[in-house]
Amino acid sequence: MAAGAERVIPEPCGLLTLLTDFGLTDPFVGVMKGVVCTAEPHVRILDITHGIRPGSVVEGAFWLERSYRYFPAGTVHCAVVDPGVGSSRGAVAVAAQGHYFVGPDNGLLAEVTLHAPHVEVRQLDLVALGLRDVSSTFHGRDVFCVVAGRLAARKLLFADVGPLAHLQVPSPIPGVVSEADHFVGNVLTVDHFGNLITSLRASEVLPASGTPFRLQVAGQWLRSVRTFADAEPGELVALIGSFDAVEIAVRDGSALSRLQPMPGASVKLFPS
Amino acid sequence: MAAGAERVIPEPCGLLTLLTDFGLTDPFVGVMKGVVCTAEPHVRILDITHGIRPGSVVEGAFWLERSYRYFPAGTVHCAVVDPGVGSSRGAVAVAAQGHYFVGPDNGLLAEVTLHAPHVEVRQLDLVALGLRDVSSTFHGRDVFCVVAGRLAARKLLFADVGPLAHLQVPSPIPGVVSEADHFVGNVLTVDHFGNLITSLRASEVLPASGTPFRLQVAGQWLRSVRTFADAEPGELVALIGSFDAVEIAVRDGSALSRLQPMPGASVKLFPS
Amino acid sequence: MAAGAERVIPEPCGLLTLLTDFGLTDPFVGVMKGVVCTAEPHVRILDITHGIRPGSVVEGAFWLERSYRYFPAGTVHCAVVDPGVGSSRGAVAVAAQGHYFVGPDNGLLAEVTLHAPHVEVRQLDLVALGLRDVSSTFHGRDVFCVVAGRLAARKLLFADVGPLAHLQVPSPIPGVVSEADHFVGNVLTVDHFGNLITSLRASEVLPASGTPFRLQVAGQWLRSVRTFADAEPGELVALIGSFDAVEIAVRDGSALSRLQPMPGASVKLFPS
Repeated sequence: MAAGAERVIPEPCGLLTLLTDFGLTDPFVGVMKGVVCTAEPHVRILDITHGIRPGSVVEGAFWLERSYRYFPAGTVHCAVVDPGVGSSRGAVAVAAQGHYFVGPDNGLLAEVTLHAPHVEVRQLDLVALGLRDVSSTFHGRDVFCVVAGRLAARKLLFADVGPLAHLQVPSPIPGVVSEADHFVGNVLTVDHFGNLITSLRASEVLPASGTPFRLQVAGQWLRSVRTFADAEPGELVALIGSFDAVEIAVRDGSALSRLQPMPGASVKLFPS
Repeated sequence: MAAGAERVIPEPCGLLTLLTDFGLTDPFVGVMKGVVCTAEPHVRILDITHGIRPGSVVEGAFWLERSYRYFPAGTVHCAVVDPGVGSSRGAVAVAAQGHYFVGPDNGLLAEVTLHAPHVEVRQLDLVALGLRDVSSTFHGRDVFCVVAGRLAARKLLFADVGPLAHLQVPSPIPGVVSEADHFVGNVLTVDHFGNLITSLRASEVLPASGTPFRLQVAGQWLRSVRTFADAEPGELVALIGSFDAVEIAVRDGSALSRLQPMPGASVKLFPS
Repeated sequence: MAAGAERVIPEPCGLLTLLTDFGLTDPFVGVMKGVVCTAEPHVRILDITHGIRPGSVVEGAFWLERSYRYFPAGTVHCAVVDPGVGSSRGAVAVAAQGHYFVGPDNGLLAEVTLHAPHVEVRQLDLVALGLRDVSSTFHGRDVFCVVAGRLAARKLLFADVGPLAHLQVPSPIPGVVSEADHFVGNVLTVDHFGNLITSLRASEVLPASGTPFRLQVAGQWLRSVRTFADAEPGELVALIGSFDAVEIAVRDGSALSRLQPMPGASVKLFPS
């Protein structure tokens, strides 16, 4: 497996991304960048987001999997949504899909491995990495971004991160269920505009891009439209969002304020 | 016009800015940066803001016009407040005031052209640019930042963006009305500190910097002060903000929580 | 003092950080970066945070002191929490602990000087620096980031910033009081996760890392734990956070929503 993985993983390209639930109110993210910049001044740092709902591994796993592909091959993604920090949960680095991922082994990195032809997982060997004196509440700063920085700077080979391992915790995103004439998925998150984003992938549940469908959620039936402007003002509709996800939206409004579904609420999609 | 414009537009300087209403909760902005960074690794990306009120073309147009001048000549500004994404609204690139602007033709870019001696507008030719397969809800990622990145990297000449055109939608910012002894403007937005920012430009409505004035808003009369510290604690006052705008403020407090004017509320300025 | 300071201050390393209470909703931070980037295109800019509570010099002074050490020696930190902007408050640059700091003389920069063996303070000479025509409400853009940018780019020597001076306003962070069997500190701020952060430094009030203690706050007694996962779900506990501060937390919840203490509320720590 290692040999196969080595063949397909490109060299780190000098770019490091951050995806966390730290928010931007405190200096947590700034300090992580300071740590990277101090040790690896030539690494470029880009934020994917720091707005994952605090502690929501589901949301973090979802957005990481949908976002990493927009960055160059060889990018190192440091992902930290880590409510179990300081406990015995594992810390890992993953090579998959031509990218590297560093973070806690709590499901956050599992989604990116699901469809990858080659996956290599390594458990971080903190002692060998010289990371013995770490805080018990901020491994994003003291462990994950240090390792990610060294990888991105090519000062540390992926093979030297630690021993080969398997992820201990699977993806927290519930699978889509295929029924006779419909698919059952879940609301995973809500975006800035109040659009509800589901676990249904358009490319998996619709025979072709543009196929109309009906969506059942919270006792309501929604028709599908191609874009926001195709809905009537105020109409609750379903559409294919820009990350291949089936979404629920209100034109010029917030679907969240209209539906208030529980995170995880069930949705049923019927192709027309 | 093109020839004149070519004479005054500097070469792109390798800097790209982003101004959107996407917020920072989701990875939308991060993914746009990934797209630029993948295609154009040497382009520097700076955020103007992503906090434009969702869908508020007025607020976006205002802040873009007041902000661009603080960036180097030759900067490419990618501006996306785009409630009509996926509809038939146009997509344009604009050269004006020594800067480049890329975004939807919905009024967002119109304000920067108002006082420009030379303006060149080009309609994005998506087919010629190889941008045929785009999402119907996220042109910020799939169209605007791709074009802006190529321009900033000097891989695409402005003249090759598409055919010469005119903006179809004018600036959404209402003009200031000059009456016999006063000017009538509008509240355009509220800043992080609760200061209300109006459409009145100090340099246009006051005979000299520092001229005292009185402001009428929501049935109240406010005196003008030079800076926050010149107001009494808790006093509602008017002052000239740092972007040449007449603003309404409360020392050590929030004018918004005191006045709660509707966005667009009328204000009258009487020079003393 | 100047000679001594010169010996211990490293050359600026080309990195500039920003710490402000400007938030990210408006383009204030973006415009500051534009100003730096226009004048000093080779300076790298990193955000520490822009989420300091508006006008809270206490919170700004605290986070600046806890954060600067994670950046490289020779970093120039531009810190702006400046409710007295435009008044007669001073404007200074400080060299301490191998770093540079630029901002208002209102206590914001004082905390970093408290334990520094060598401190050099210089009052900004705006006339000599060519900064005569500045706004009365945005010195972050018109003064502080200009000076910080020149320092970071090594275009301006620290000695040429202006005359030697002393800080006029001391640190606003109340000192910890040592009683017979306990220490008395204060709640200084609340982080993104609802953890309450106190002025008690673990390294100063506990005989050794890991010493258990009890904390009294708002009439309640809290036990200490090592990390969040060591608390019972929903239990209100004390722990040593990642910035050497005694913190109050709820596992998988928000201590803020449980306690609602006033900022500045007193806390008493009893080592066990």
